[in-house]
Amino acid sequence: MFPQIVPPSEEVRQEAIARQLTLTKPAGSLGRLEDIGNFIAACQATCPPKPISKPHIVVFAGDHGVAQNGVSAFPAEVSLQMAANIEAGGAAINVLGRQAGATVELAEISLNLPEGTAPGPYHVRNGSGSIDREDAMTEEEYITALTHGRNIADKAVDAGADLLIAGDLGIGNTTPAAALIGAACGLEPVVAVGRGTGIDDEGWKRKVSVIRDAMFRVRTYRNDGAHVLRAISSPDLVAMAGFLAQAAVRKTPVILDGVVVTAAALWANQIAPGASAWWLAGHRSAEPAHTRALEALNLTPIIDEYHMRLGEGSGAALALPVVKAATAILAEMATFESAGVSNKDE
Amino acid sequence: MFPQIVPPSEEVRQEAIARQLTLTKPAGSLGRLEDIGNFIAACQATCPPKPISKPHIVVFAGDHGVAQNGVSAFPAEVSLQMAANIEAGGAAINVLGRQAGATVELAEISLNLPEGTAPGPYHVRNGSGSIDREDAMTEEEYITALTHGRNIADKAVDAGADLLIAGDLGIGNTTPAAALIGAACGLEPVVAVGRGTGIDDEGWKRKVSVIRDAMFRVRTYRNDGAHVLRAISSPDLVAMAGFLAQAAVRKTPVILDGVVVTAAALWANQIAPGASAWWLAGHRSAEPAHTRALEALNLTPIIDEYHMRLGEGSGAALALPVVKAATAILAEMATFESAGVSNKDE
Repeated sequence: MFPQIVPPSEEVRQEAIARQLTLTKPAGSLGRLEDIGNFIAACQATCPPKPISKPHIVVFAGDHGVAQNGVSAFPAEVSLQMAANIEAGGAAINVLGRQAGATVELAEISLNLPEGTAPGPYHVRNGSGSIDREDAMTEEEYITALTHGRNIADKAVDAGADLLIAGDLGIGNTTPAAALIGAACGLEPVVAVGRGTGIDDEGWKRKVSVIRDAMFRVRTYRNDGAHVLRAISSPDLVAMAGFLAQAAVRKTPVILDGVVVTAAALWANQIAPGASAWWLAGHRSAEPAHTRALEALNLTPIIDEYHMRLGEGSGAALALPVVKAATAILAEMATFESAGVSNKDE
Repeated sequence: MFPQIVPPSEEVRQEAIARQLTLTKPAGSLGRLEDIGNFIAACQATCPPKPISKPHIVVFAGDHGVAQNGVSAFPAEVSLQMAANIEAGGAAINVLGRQAGATVELAEISLNLPEGTAPGPYHVRNGSGSIDREDAMTEEEYITALTHGRNIADKAVDAGADLLIAGDLGIGNTTPAAALIGAACGLEPVVAVGRGTGIDDEGWKRKVSVIRDAMFRVRTYRNDGAHVLRAISSPDLVAMAGFLAQAAVRKTPVILDGVVVTAAALWANQIAPGASAWWLAGHRSAEPAHTRALEALNLTPIIDEYHMRLGEGSGAALALPVVKAATAILAEMATFESAGVSNKDE
């Protein structure tokens, strides 16, 4: 489905490292900000890099069969209501996107549409199978969802997007996310399971049991990403995986969000090996499985210790200004020579 | 010199905490971002808060007598060259200020001006006494510097600034900063001293010895902020302390920067008790004394683990978009009621 991923240019990254030393600041004094700027230059294969000017956020929305099992604190109709809230510009991701100068798109993949609603262009099916006892989707639905995700990334990049963010929306979605991370990292279900949007102890026990059953169903398929995704994720997560993989194919950097997006990312990197070389981690979510997924992807979050657990891409959007600033530093700062400033070695 | 500081409105902070629960997100799901938004609402005594629209950065520039002792990796003329670089818009703080939508002002307090240069409106003196063996400035110079800092804050707030950032510029300034923090927190000199802009082992030993001597000179004056500041800081740091204290008097929130600004802040809070209630910490610098100063002020950095050590206000400027985003969340997000979204309890 995906061609071989070419990593960001190591040659240009070395050029960027060298350029940092010519800028009017003590060597290394911008710490991690320098690493991020060098990464963006390598992605663009251009040093100095162009400023990040058209970042684009896509929120993938879908409902989840497991939500019937009482794994969430919120009723399932909230998915649809929140999708409308995002379309109207009132959700957290709209505010954070505006603040960071990013556009926000809602991609409705698998919400439970009320009867009589015309499905949007990316609608695959209503909801998903209950992953503790049945596949989330058919093979055909899997291919359709993956293709939609790929096309959504292509459309954005073709329209000039120079950085992509995926967000998630859907009551119950931290359950497949935890199962996906548990399966990829070989975690015990109790280690993988967090409180999501805020369930109580009884709900947490139900969630653990669903995740344990889902992980059991794919226990022999750890090297078959397509099988695992089809069996225990959901169409919106598959579309997200396709989107993240295609961003790498299109050589476009990505900021990952929290536990749901990172779960999709883990498996996107399995079906499109090397895609993770194009990704940054936005934040560290309050969900415990997220930290394990970030470790597996060898990513360090840009924003840490904020204990955010909202989804929608909010953690990535909060990190976006840091990435823009890192890029601008490399692009816009004066050099010792241009500013006539004496360097340490002179 | 400063009237009694009134803290941000606890009543409005409680109002903000209650408002967060009405916004279309799971309770507490934006983690620390919610705390920051609530803080800004309390500072403005208005909930929802107004967006941060006129943040202003003032870089306080001065030279340091101790720079003759080989405590810095850079030659002393770099202070003047970097001041010119900031005026020309080519320094890191200019880039980060532009990215965050903040204006940047250079306040020349005590640079070593070449003969024949007309001093600016805030020039107190050329450089400072070598704090290991003489006072940094006279009593009169101390009052003048403090008054300048106060006036610079007043001017900015009168012009509409709704958030203030202080930055530092001056070769050798991490030496008085470490001495000030060491004296305030009772640290051993070897604990307080970092590598600044990047000195070698021999330079580090010289720096430790200067700081030890400076701390010894003020060992019995820990409760006399004016004495300590006059004896072992510098006019630019005194102006900065006046600026930070006056921001609190004017009920304007501040984001502190790294080790130099936080050293001035520690003593500003001594001469204007309670001022620290108006401050946020921007980042955690690579300088070891910074962490101790933040602990003493009971502040948790907005950006952590970036290992920045540039000064100029750069760490605070990098944190500014987070503060703006936190404020916008509280101001702009839809409520469950306005968006017609079902809440958890319904």
